[in-house]
Amino acid sequence: MYPKSIKQLIESFKYFPGIGEKTAERLAFSVLNLDKEQVNSLSRSITDASKKIKKCSICNNLTEDDKCSICEDNNRNHDLLCVVEDPKTVFSIEKLGTFNGYYHVLNGLISSFNNIDSSTLDIQKLIKRIENSDFKEVIIAVKQCIEGEMTALYIKNILGDMNVKVTRIASGIPMGADMEYIDSLTLEKAFDNRQTIS
Amino acid sequence: MYPKSIKQLIESFKYFPGIGEKTAERLAFSVLNLDKEQVNSLSRSITDASKKIKKCSICNNLTEDDKCSICEDNNRNHDLLCVVEDPKTVFSIEKLGTFNGYYHVLNGLISSFNNIDSSTLDIQKLIKRIENSDFKEVIIAVKQCIEGEMTALYIKNILGDMNVKVTRIASGIPMGADMEYIDSLTLEKAFDNRQTIS
Repeated sequence: MYPKSIKQLIESFKYFPGIGEKTAERLAFSVLNLDKEQVNSLSRSITDASKKIKKCSICNNLTEDDKCSICEDNNRNHDLLCVVEDPKTVFSIEKLGTFNGYYHVLNGLISSFNNIDSSTLDIQKLIKRIENSDFKEVIIAVKQCIEGEMTALYIKNILGDMNVKVTRIASGIPMGADMEYIDSLTLEKAFDNRQTIS
Repeated sequence: MYPKSIKQLIESFKYFPGIGEKTAERLAFSVLNLDKEQVNSLSRSITDASKKIKKCSICNNLTEDDKCSICEDNNRNHDLLCVVEDPKTVFSIEKLGTFNGYYHVLNGLISSFNNIDSSTLDIQKLIKRIENSDFKEVIIAVKQCIEGEMTALYIKNILGDMNVKVTRIASGIPMGADMEYIDSLTLEKAFDNRQTIS
């Protein structure tokens, strides 16, 4: 029904997770409305990014070089290491501009359901890194779920003997959220982790 | 903050209408998870579609050739011409598989707000086409809005003297919709256009 090249374009957009037939069609038709320069730029940046981007040899963050710009930056706080699930979280935290330590990207969480254990995640790389540096605090900033909990506990246990504090970012009521829409687990956590008003 | 090639990729995805920073980021990170073959196929199909697709010389539908596959098909119903706003609608109607006539794509609607008049839409092309063929009915299948209404009326008036019936697809309650969520304009239309139960 569609001309062949549109059909192929729609199929290509469906490679993306979460993009179904309708959205793929919408994106494909949008491509036809782009000017020649935009089309070339889009096409080139897709192959470019895919070719150039690799994992930082130190922290697993995304980079075009051997080490990412954060690991290369000697002016950050050498006391703090923030452990995250994926590179996207690094960029989310960096956008805040408030955290000034270093990162370690796990590229996943321990999950008995998906058969991901500590070796799959190469947690040894994290351990070795901590052993060979002077981090005073490891902040675990993974999402609140069973897998996040398991991963946090695993790291906490394995770092138990080392001279490093292990913390986890707080969970509780999101800013501005209506109390009536907060799920009971979050509300429970928020009560458990209540803070003295100073 | 992002490596340059990721930043460029995010910017490129923002060319699409309706795609903001967050979605562009999500798409860009998805590209990094595609395998090499998918990346090449996506990149190639973007430039391919953009290069090859043009307007059908008869009906303005999208095609890789001079005439689209529908205009080339002599086995369709030569009595019916369906006028639509854009090529996407052609494909939506074709998916139904129930309409077997021909199409004419306006590529827009008459809009005093956006300064689009009958000459911008090249409605002369539609008129000439009808004059030079044996269509018995022109079905106007544009969306229900002021611009749709104006376009439908304009075409109806201009075709007034010709020996051709001009109809418009029905508007009313969508199938399965809860009555309480129907807006009042739609409900009014549904009452106005009520049908005898046979």
